[in-house]
Amino acid sequence: MPSLLSLSLSLLLLFNGCLARQSSEQQFQFQNECQINRLNSIEPTSRIRSEAGTTEWWNPNSQQLRCAGVSVMRQNVEPNGLVLPYFTNAPQLIYIVQGRGIQGTVLPGCAETFQESQQGQEQGQKSRRRFQDQHQKIRRFRQGDMIALPAGVVHWFYNDGNERLVTVNLLHTANSDNQLDNNPRRFSLAGNPEEEQRRLRRFAQQQIQGSRSESESEEMEDEDEEEQDNRPSRKQSGSRHEQQSSSCNNLLCAFDQEFLAQAFNVDTSLIRRLQEVRGHKGSIIRVRGRLDVVSPPTMEEEEREERQQEQRYRQRHPSGRDNGLEETFCAMRLKENIADPERADIFNPQAGRLSTLNRYNLPILNALGLSAERGVLYNRAGTVPQWCINAHKILYMLKGSARIQVVNENGDTVFDDNVEQGQLLTVPQNFAFLKRAGSEGAEWVSFFTNSEAANTPLAGRVSAIRALPEEVVAASYQISREDARKVKFNNQDTFFFTSSRSERRDQA
Amino acid sequence: MPSLLSLSLSLLLLFNGCLARQSSEQQFQFQNECQINRLNSIEPTSRIRSEAGTTEWWNPNSQQLRCAGVSVMRQNVEPNGLVLPYFTNAPQLIYIVQGRGIQGTVLPGCAETFQESQQGQEQGQKSRRRFQDQHQKIRRFRQGDMIALPAGVVHWFYNDGNERLVTVNLLHTANSDNQLDNNPRRFSLAGNPEEEQRRLRRFAQQQIQGSRSESESEEMEDEDEEEQDNRPSRKQSGSRHEQQSSSCNNLLCAFDQEFLAQAFNVDTSLIRRLQEVRGHKGSIIRVRGRLDVVSPPTMEEEEREERQQEQRYRQRHPSGRDNGLEETFCAMRLKENIADPERADIFNPQAGRLSTLNRYNLPILNALGLSAERGVLYNRAGTVPQWCINAHKILYMLKGSARIQVVNENGDTVFDDNVEQGQLLTVPQNFAFLKRAGSEGAEWVSFFTNSEAANTPLAGRVSAIRALPEEVVAASYQISREDARKVKFNNQDTFFFTSSRSERRDQA
Amino acid sequence: MPSLLSLSLSLLLLFNGCLARQSSEQQFQFQNECQINRLNSIEPTSRIRSEAGTTEWWNPNSQQLRCAGVSVMRQNVEPNGLVLPYFTNAPQLIYIVQGRGIQGTVLPGCAETFQESQQGQEQGQKSRRRFQDQHQKIRRFRQGDMIALPAGVVHWFYNDGNERLVTVNLLHTANSDNQLDNNPRRFSLAGNPEEEQRRLRRFAQQQIQGSRSESESEEMEDEDEEEQDNRPSRKQSGSRHEQQSSSCNNLLCAFDQEFLAQAFNVDTSLIRRLQEVRGHKGSIIRVRGRLDVVSPPTMEEEEREERQQEQRYRQRHPSGRDNGLEETFCAMRLKENIADPERADIFNPQAGRLSTLNRYNLPILNALGLSAERGVLYNRAGTVPQWCINAHKILYMLKGSARIQVVNENGDTVFDDNVEQGQLLTVPQNFAFLKRAGSEGAEWVSFFTNSEAANTPLAGRVSAIRALPEEVVAASYQISREDARKVKFNNQDTFFFTSSRSERRDQA
Repeated sequence: MPSLLSLSLSLLLLFNGCLARQSSEQQFQFQNECQINRLNSIEPTSRIRSEAGTTEWWNPNSQQLRCAGVSVMRQNVEPNGLVLPYFTNAPQLIYIVQGRGIQGTVLPGCAETFQESQQGQEQGQKSRRRFQDQHQKIRRFRQGDMIALPAGVVHWFYNDGNERLVTVNLLHTANSDNQLDNNPRRFSLAGNPEEEQRRLRRFAQQQIQGSRSESESEEMEDEDEEEQDNRPSRKQSGSRHEQQSSSCNNLLCAFDQEFLAQAFNVDTSLIRRLQEVRGHKGSIIRVRGRLDVVSPPTMEEEEREERQQEQRYRQRHPSGRDNGLEETFCAMRLKENIADPERADIFNPQAGRLSTLNRYNLPILNALGLSAERGVLYNRAGTVPQWCINAHKILYMLKGSARIQVVNENGDTVFDDNVEQGQLLTVPQNFAFLKRAGSEGAEWVSFFTNSEAANTPLAGRVSAIRALPEEVVAASYQISREDARKVKFNNQDTFFFTSSRSERRDQA
Repeated sequence: MPSLLSLSLSLLLLFNGCLARQSSEQQFQFQNECQINRLNSIEPTSRIRSEAGTTEWWNPNSQQLRCAGVSVMRQNVEPNGLVLPYFTNAPQLIYIVQGRGIQGTVLPGCAETFQESQQGQEQGQKSRRRFQDQHQKIRRFRQGDMIALPAGVVHWFYNDGNERLVTVNLLHTANSDNQLDNNPRRFSLAGNPEEEQRRLRRFAQQQIQGSRSESESEEMEDEDEEEQDNRPSRKQSGSRHEQQSSSCNNLLCAFDQEFLAQAFNVDTSLIRRLQEVRGHKGSIIRVRGRLDVVSPPTMEEEEREERQQEQRYRQRHPSGRDNGLEETFCAMRLKENIADPERADIFNPQAGRLSTLNRYNLPILNALGLSAERGVLYNRAGTVPQWCINAHKILYMLKGSARIQVVNENGDTVFDDNVEQGQLLTVPQNFAFLKRAGSEGAEWVSFFTNSEAANTPLAGRVSAIRALPEEVVAASYQISREDARKVKFNNQDTFFFTSSRSERRDQA
Repeated sequence: MPSLLSLSLSLLLLFNGCLARQSSEQQFQFQNECQINRLNSIEPTSRIRSEAGTTEWWNPNSQQLRCAGVSVMRQNVEPNGLVLPYFTNAPQLIYIVQGRGIQGTVLPGCAETFQESQQGQEQGQKSRRRFQDQHQKIRRFRQGDMIALPAGVVHWFYNDGNERLVTVNLLHTANSDNQLDNNPRRFSLAGNPEEEQRRLRRFAQQQIQGSRSESESEEMEDEDEEEQDNRPSRKQSGSRHEQQSSSCNNLLCAFDQEFLAQAFNVDTSLIRRLQEVRGHKGSIIRVRGRLDVVSPPTMEEEEREERQQEQRYRQRHPSGRDNGLEETFCAMRLKENIADPERADIFNPQAGRLSTLNRYNLPILNALGLSAERGVLYNRAGTVPQWCINAHKILYMLKGSARIQVVNENGDTVFDDNVEQGQLLTVPQNFAFLKRAGSEGAEWVSFFTNSEAANTPLAGRVSAIRALPEEVVAASYQISREDARKVKFNNQDTFFFTSSRSERRDQA
């Protein structure tokens, strides 16, 4: 009975498949998501094109991003491009990799403090002269700025410069401010961001099915496939939801026209125009003409004013523990430039520099539970081995490349490779790591999942080794006290090392 | 070989069953519990009868309640009914839908500040005259009160009025004060609440088995089925645990009589009477005669005193961040009436009113991480589309009905239906929603999973749209600046809209 | 066709196996980890031998430890033994069961405040006279001390006494300071702790596979089995990683020699010596000669100084809410002796005493979210039935034994047995429990997963029963008011009861 045998074999194979599938899923099942034996530097896995730019998402199901509880996206906005107003279910840190622009953040309960005289801007149009628009504060930003945004808060970006605007956005989905689940969500107030929504839905389904890519080395895919997810049918699938021409996927579209007309106190015909989104423009549109909003004060004026407010606030709240939603919040500083070399917190003319951003120098980070660092390493210089005691570190390489080694609790090297420009690498909390720049140096920005991330270096002037008594070092490593002294004191630098010095020693 | 074929087919079917079961469970497996494509207004699914009332539980495994991390129950207490002392593993907000009564909350470490002269109450019984009972504070409550209770804290309720007392209790099981799991637990100090315990155990098992009802539209079931759960056999299943007559399921019963006699320093015969619970009276018993406790001061006196204490406390702790367990906690206000029209925070004589309760006006909510709102809408008026930026909203309809629309991040309407009196609807964090009352108006109470829930309206005087520059509105929706101005400024109201005004406009 | 039948049967059995395996896993799947029907007192399940001591781990997958979110280990350190510097991914509370020693904790960013003159210590060695070592603070400790350590912070222990040093270490893996997963991790800075790492990896894999021992009564196993875990192959498996002789598993070993030479600014030959760990000495080594570090001030001097600093700090931060990482942190008190009878918070000369340690008397516990208690019961005395309202309690029996009863929300006795010296028992949050010492008394230490754990007794002077009005007690238990009064007032003691008194009554 050969067929019986073959049947039994095939069934057993099926069975093994069943069990195998089970056990591959088990990695996920218990949220044991930081059992990391192998890391990879990762790139975005999907690119969504909009009229005036692209949005690229890293796969949020990659093991390292799930361990860190974050999602990351990169936006490219062409000159004159407007990122339509949206909010996310997680606090964001947005780093301006390149370009400049203006940005608005809608803080709930805050007043419209910017008054805009039509006269000044549209000369000759006498009929509008008397009307003054008013709206919430607008902020300028430029390359090197880090912008902090709370969860659930509407914001928009406009590229008013002449070059592409590039941003890297970190969403901390594991943050306690996000009471939904670990999936990144983008709620759009305008436009038809259907491709992006489809992509995010697919990520969420993949996560449910546990089919994350083990290799984490997927090819970038452009979003042109057929959608197959089981989306509920729309209630009002009438005239304004034609499959071919255009559809409306923003928050406004799903509400009843009649109710919206009453809520906005306008004609239903105007509501119909609001809900009728023409073309597949996505979440970044090109503004016809230019966006002519009231010119915010110069960067310097604005920052000076904000810092003064901050200081006044701190004098009234010496404990430093505000909740991020009080009234002064309305005038709170939401950004700081961390690229300026003069701002560096740690600087070594031979090796590089580090700028840190945390709840002490940008108080809103206290409410967000996030911090950041921007670093520069010169040719073949490095940062000493160290670990972050209280946060995951998500590093994005801005320029050049660096060889990075990451070591887990077993003393295993889980990563030992170059991270190139545009790549991302997560170093889980407590994992030790070391960076050495390539011959063209390295510049990076790192995000931390704690508002005051603290790193302990293994070597150098503020290191753990140096904090140990010489005798303990000697006994622990079974070396002489003389050698222990060298290990403790030879590197007088903080966080950095240079190749030249050591090469000199080796040759000596 | 037809039988072989049929065998193989049946095995394949079995296999598919295995896989299917797996994938249906996966929805649960990863706690992806807020991937909500469809909401329903829900009603309690089980009713437990006690001697002097009923307890109704909503199924805590319904997707919306699991997403929000809450459990909800409704209590009906007949006049002269006593809810026996119990505590829960989660902080509670209790809204008094109807009726009045007195209530005691046992705050650990607080003194017995109420002295009760027996003389005043039981005239003629000279033998007891000298003895004065003393106990912790007792509070009066009435319709419209919201009562806040920390986790693990004993409390009892007594209906001393002439009508039924109806309460809706929200248990925030996802609260960080609950270090057990997401299952609601009720620890009883007295009585034999076996039916309720059986029902809660069954909910917990359903949750383990992942067999939540997808439709969430189960029929109410009265608790008369056979129990099939695998409860451990009782140690002392002797004389006082007869299957038929009565059993004792409260915390006292399980301890050894001898030990209890020593702990209470009383005879074992008295312990035996404590542990011997007669009849199946459940968790709400009828008091013989009336419960003759010391009369608390009038509501007004009590509230005035508590507010004064609160103010003194705040002057000493200007940061507003107490931990809820300090000494002043003993005299802390635990309730506030939010039904009184004069208390409304937002009021529109044409549309309705809103009363909010949060950590600013009831400081204990700071420790509990919860807040609430009571709203009234008149005939066919509505609240503007909005979303809560930092909390889930659990709405219970008190009176009348309202059509509610809820929109998720994809711009899909996940709910568009009427919510009727006695029904519950969860609006997940960041989901946009809109309410319009039916022709008889609507009254509701909403619970929020944050001590300072903040809503952002899309329309009206404090809306996100109004905070955007006119040019951004015009560009985002591809409408003229004139239309943008209308959308921004036409509704001068806060949170409300009325049907009449819009109808006028439409006809004009 | 008998073979067909047998095939079908065997496949069905396989299938049932598949389903059964699924359903046994489901207990885990939903992190429903506190559905506890049965508790056991547990002992360590694995013992790892090092050169100068042993490390014993309780299985962190035991249901009670997973419910509590903790891992527990016990260290035995021989005289002159050094616990090599390491850190963990979770905050630790370390109780000194026996012995004394010195200890160093490396607080990041803190200065090396201890200067060590070589002259004083190594007389005659003139060549080294000029050099002074400097390092961070060293602390003495002795039996009865509780030491608190933040996550990610390096520390070492040295037994400078004449008897074995025994410590019980609680790791709170569920703490929010641990952003990895629930597995305990030990990051070693020196030595070759391979056996311990292998054991911890196996625990983590067991947890993934869901194969926790239901009985929780595993035999202690010594670590001599073959390792079968799929560890990634080491990058540099060259000369210094010989399978037979010795291997290096600490954080330093995995980094590139050349990079480390640059980072420490020393020759690669010295790095090679650092990375070359000789012998299988594990994580506790024997120091040749004695460890001759600078002598810390006497315990009394040190403690007085630290308390003064603490008081100065509190005067500046009256809110009591520091974040544990500010500058004064460097001089913060990390330990307190809770064995001293004079320190007892509650004392009854007939029954015993209790010493509590929480955020009010050891402020660093505020940052760690942990607290502790040390208790003593004399011959056959007991603590009254009670529950902890806001924390899990993990009890370790130091001496003697006690009969403990634990009751869950259903009124079921989930534990009723003796806990003997060296055993551990978890009492989940809100579960009621009672202790009665055996004829030789009992001494224990309990850890709590909250920085201000609060217990509510059911009987005695500060009990829940006493806080209830007499009439409520009478109605609830259906007893007379006279009996209610006895139940409320007869035990005038706080937390304790004695057997004698009750026996007297019973006989009376």
